[in-house]
Amino acid sequence: MFDSGVGGLTVLHECLVSLPGEDFVYLGDTARFPYGTRPAEELRSFVADVAGYLLDLDAKLLVIACNSATSAGADEARRLAEPLGVPVVTVIEPEAEIAAAITESGKVGVLATPTTVAGGAYRRALEGQGRALEVTEVGCPDLAPIIQRDATFDHGVIDTVRGYVKPLKQAQVDTVILGCTHYPLVAPLLQRILGRDVRVVMAGHAVAASVQRILAERGLDNPREGEGDYRFLCTSDADSFREIGTRFLQMPLGEVRRVDLRG
Amino acid sequence: MFDSGVGGLTVLHECLVSLPGEDFVYLGDTARFPYGTRPAEELRSFVADVAGYLLDLDAKLLVIACNSATSAGADEARRLAEPLGVPVVTVIEPEAEIAAAITESGKVGVLATPTTVAGGAYRRALEGQGRALEVTEVGCPDLAPIIQRDATFDHGVIDTVRGYVKPLKQAQVDTVILGCTHYPLVAPLLQRILGRDVRVVMAGHAVAASVQRILAERGLDNPREGEGDYRFLCTSDADSFREIGTRFLQMPLGEVRRVDLRG
Repeated sequence: MFDSGVGGLTVLHECLVSLPGEDFVYLGDTARFPYGTRPAEELRSFVADVAGYLLDLDAKLLVIACNSATSAGADEARRLAEPLGVPVVTVIEPEAEIAAAITESGKVGVLATPTTVAGGAYRRALEGQGRALEVTEVGCPDLAPIIQRDATFDHGVIDTVRGYVKPLKQAQVDTVILGCTHYPLVAPLLQRILGRDVRVVMAGHAVAASVQRILAERGLDNPREGEGDYRFLCTSDADSFREIGTRFLQMPLGEVRRVDLRG
Repeated sequence: MFDSGVGGLTVLHECLVSLPGEDFVYLGDTARFPYGTRPAEELRSFVADVAGYLLDLDAKLLVIACNSATSAGADEARRLAEPLGVPVVTVIEPEAEIAAAITESGKVGVLATPTTVAGGAYRRALEGQGRALEVTEVGCPDLAPIIQRDATFDHGVIDTVRGYVKPLKQAQVDTVILGCTHYPLVAPLLQRILGRDVRVVMAGHAVAASVQRILAERGLDNPREGEGDYRFLCTSDADSFREIGTRFLQMPLGEVRRVDLRG
């Protein structure tokens, strides 16, 4: 599994809880964080670096736990992985599937970074689900930075989140996709502001369900009784990855090792 | 709502998410933390102090979000509150009700502090649910202190939790009550070790459901559209309460004020 930084750990979190028997290696390409502001061509080459590195470790399945990398590089990852018989799971499509399946009113909201919204990947994925959906997207420039920066949210976070949620309340959505892997850290706050009746769809649940289904279909699932291993690679300082990562994983991190992708 | 410290904030968390329209005041009696090792008679007088303070603030419902205070002082709180028409919701009984309702095998596990296990309150509450249950209780002396101490769990936490969970796995329970308000912070880890098929019951969900039902029954629920206020009182240093509290509430704390209960 990989991401540009620690955000994808919210996806790993759900996989660790849902698929305890599997082994995971997570690579955060922290030296080149953030991916969101880079040209697609550059991102595609980053995805090739990271996917290549993980395939060399004999990964049996690859998860792209990053919106930007999915938009720009999912095809590239598949080009490298599929000839080796390695399936690729991405974000965006799994959340769109779940949202389309659970919305009753057909009114779906998306909270994401401005880059993700501008790229239109969630809108396309939702429109490809075979039912008429009314999609309201809100770009949230300040939300991921606030979450990344500070473990102790101050009260201003509430106003920031409330501002972003307002168009979704006005549109009366009954389902909201958290279209950035940082956002699960404010999921309780979002749920409080949206109200209990609104369903919140996060990449973690959606990806874990996809991984589980694909492993089972291909007979690749690990039948062990106990828990598997998980470990972490990053491309800049390991200590700061561990420090900030725990908040995103909500579990002990254990081994974190710095690697050089070009090495 | 009150507790001896920050643990009850995991209960408040769920109430804030489930009952966004209500106003909450949370009092952490941090000057006399921990309650768990004190004689019942002393605890009863603490409960009288705290409940009295909150009733003077015109609380319409009182939640005892603390196992020790519930065991020793629920009667005392009711004696003070009920003549004023104020219902009292405690921990223990709500979790027992839910666990008895959802267990299929009838095998229920309880993780709690040694004091709570020794007091037998969960066992009695479970045995009073009107169906035959096989109850396995595990006293976890190290778990709450580990959670209280350190935001960045090290890998040793996994071994500690695995040790406590072992008797529950051997007993093949299908439902586990987290009988201490600190434990939700390791709920993902517990779920991973227990496996997805085991249902984990936390005080937060159980209490929020009870509060919602009682408010509705008595016509006391707040019909407002937006979110209510929440604020915090504690009996020792406000800054350290705020610092450690955010981790337990998983939301911004905002106002924290130090009060003197004997004032």
